[in-house]
Amino acid sequence: MTGVRSAAVIGLGLIGGSVARDLAARGVRVLGHDRDPAAVRDALREGGIGEALADWGDVGGVDLVVLAVPVTAAPAVLRLIRPRGGALVTDVGSTKESIVRAAEDAGLGERFVGSHPLAGDHRSGWSASRTGLFRDARVFLTPTSRTMPDALERARALWTALGAGTEVVDAAEHDQRMAAVSHLPQALATALGALLGEAGLGRADLGPGAREMTRLAGSSPEMWAAIAADNARQLSTAVAAMQERLRELRDALDRGDAGRLRSFFEEGSLWFAGGDR
Amino acid sequence: MTGVRSAAVIGLGLIGGSVARDLAARGVRVLGHDRDPAAVRDALREGGIGEALADWGDVGGVDLVVLAVPVTAAPAVLRLIRPRGGALVTDVGSTKESIVRAAEDAGLGERFVGSHPLAGDHRSGWSASRTGLFRDARVFLTPTSRTMPDALERARALWTALGAGTEVVDAAEHDQRMAAVSHLPQALATALGALLGEAGLGRADLGPGAREMTRLAGSSPEMWAAIAADNARQLSTAVAAMQERLRELRDALDRGDAGRLRSFFEEGSLWFAGGDR
Repeated sequence: MTGVRSAAVIGLGLIGGSVARDLAARGVRVLGHDRDPAAVRDALREGGIGEALADWGDVGGVDLVVLAVPVTAAPAVLRLIRPRGGALVTDVGSTKESIVRAAEDAGLGERFVGSHPLAGDHRSGWSASRTGLFRDARVFLTPTSRTMPDALERARALWTALGAGTEVVDAAEHDQRMAAVSHLPQALATALGALLGEAGLGRADLGPGAREMTRLAGSSPEMWAAIAADNARQLSTAVAAMQERLRELRDALDRGDAGRLRSFFEEGSLWFAGGDR
Repeated sequence: MTGVRSAAVIGLGLIGGSVARDLAARGVRVLGHDRDPAAVRDALREGGIGEALADWGDVGGVDLVVLAVPVTAAPAVLRLIRPRGGALVTDVGSTKESIVRAAEDAGLGERFVGSHPLAGDHRSGWSASRTGLFRDARVFLTPTSRTMPDALERARALWTALGAGTEVVDAAEHDQRMAAVSHLPQALATALGALLGEAGLGRADLGPGAREMTRLAGSSPEMWAAIAADNARQLSTAVAAMQERLRELRDALDRGDAGRLRSFFEEGSLWFAGGDR
C-alpha cells in the first residue's frame, strides 16, 4: 500500500495496535515494540505484527516509523531512533506542538509529519485495538515549513489508505483547538466521575445521559496525564473558561434568577441546534 | 391494566406523550392536554390520546392523573385540578421535594405519589415521544408519611406495567442525588456546548467522545431552567464541588505537577473501573 513495504510501530496500545493491525492486514511487514512484553507477545500471536522490534532505535530497515507512545514519552523516542534516509516518521499523539519541536530538535524535521487521528476511546491497550479503527475518522496532520512535501503526501496517503480523512493544520492551533474540543471534555468526564465516586455513587446509579457524560472517565490515566501536562497552558485556559461559566451558573442559581438560568440553557441548546446533530 | 381505565395526561412532551401512548396502547381511555394545540392535535391524530381535555382542572372523570409539565409549572396545575376521590395523582418531574410539598398544600397528599422516570433524552416535545420509552427504565417514587399505601402500590403497578423498575426514595434525598447524577451533568454539557460555540466550534468539529459529552446540550432549555430553579440549592452545591475539582486541576496544570495530574485522571478511572461499565 502507498509504497510502504515495512513499518515499525512503537507502542502497541489502542491506536498503535490498530495501526499495526491495519498495516499487517494490507500486507505490510510490521515490526512492533511495546514496553509491555505481553502486548508484544499478543500482537505477534494475533498477527498484528510480524516481528518484535528488538530495540526502539532499531528502525533502520523500515519505510515508515509510527510513534504511538504517551505524548510526553515521544520526544525521548525521537532522540533514540535512527530511521534510514527517506523513511517517513509520524506519530498519533493528541498534542502536536511539542512533538513537532522534538522532531526538529532530533534532526528529523524534514521527514516527520505529526498525525493525530480522532479515534480515541475510553478503552486502551493492545486488547482494545482493532482493524478498521480509522475508517471515517478524521486525522489532523501538522507539517511545518521544514517538512518535505513528499513526506506530507506519504502521511496523507497512509491515513487515506486506512480509511481516514486528513486535514492539515498548524501544530499550535491544533493544540489550542484540542484543548477545547477534546482535553476539556475529557477533564470534565474525569472530574464528574470522581465527584460521583466521592458521593458514593457509581455508573449503575446514572441515567443514559449521565452515563454518556462519564464514559470518558474510563480513559487511560497515564495517556491523559501526559496529554494534560503537554498541553497544560492551553488546557488551563479552557478550564478557566469553564470555571467562569460555572461561576455564572452558580450566581444565577444562588440569586434564583430564572431569566439567567433560561439564558444559560438556551445558549447550549442554540449551539446544539446550529451544528450537525 | 392495573385497574386504570381512564387517565388524564397533562403535558404531552417527551415523557407525558410517551406515558399517554403507552396507556392508550394498553386500552386505557386517555384524555390529554398541552398548552400547544398542535401537540394535542398530533396526539389525537396518532391515537396517543383518545380525547382532548377541555380544561386542565377537568379531571373528575378519570382514575389516574399524570402531570408532565415543567417542574416549576406543576404546583399551579396541582392547585387547579379537582380529581375525584380515589384517583391516583402522579407526575414525572426531575425534582421531587417541591412537588410533594405542593401536592400536600393542595390537599392531595394522600393520593399523590411523586414519580421520576429516568428516561430523559435531549429531544423533547410530542414528536420525540414513543411507546416503550420506560421499558427497563428506573423510576423513583417519593411517597411521604401522608401517602396512602394503596396510592403507592398503584403508582408502582403503573410503572411496572410500562416496563420500568421502581425505587422508593425520600424526596429531599432524591433531589440531592439528582443534582449530582443528572442536573450537574446536564449543566456541564450545556456549558461545554456554549464554550465551544464561543470558540466558533460546532458539533461537526468534535470526535466521538466530545460529541457524547455535548449531546445533552440539545435538551429543552425551558425544562432545564425549571429544574435548575427548582433544585437551585442542591445544584449550586454540586456545581461548587465541580468548581473545586477544576480549581485543583488548573493548579496542577499551572504548576506542571505531573504527579497531581496523574492522580486527577487516576481517580476518575478508578471510579469508572469500580462500577458497572
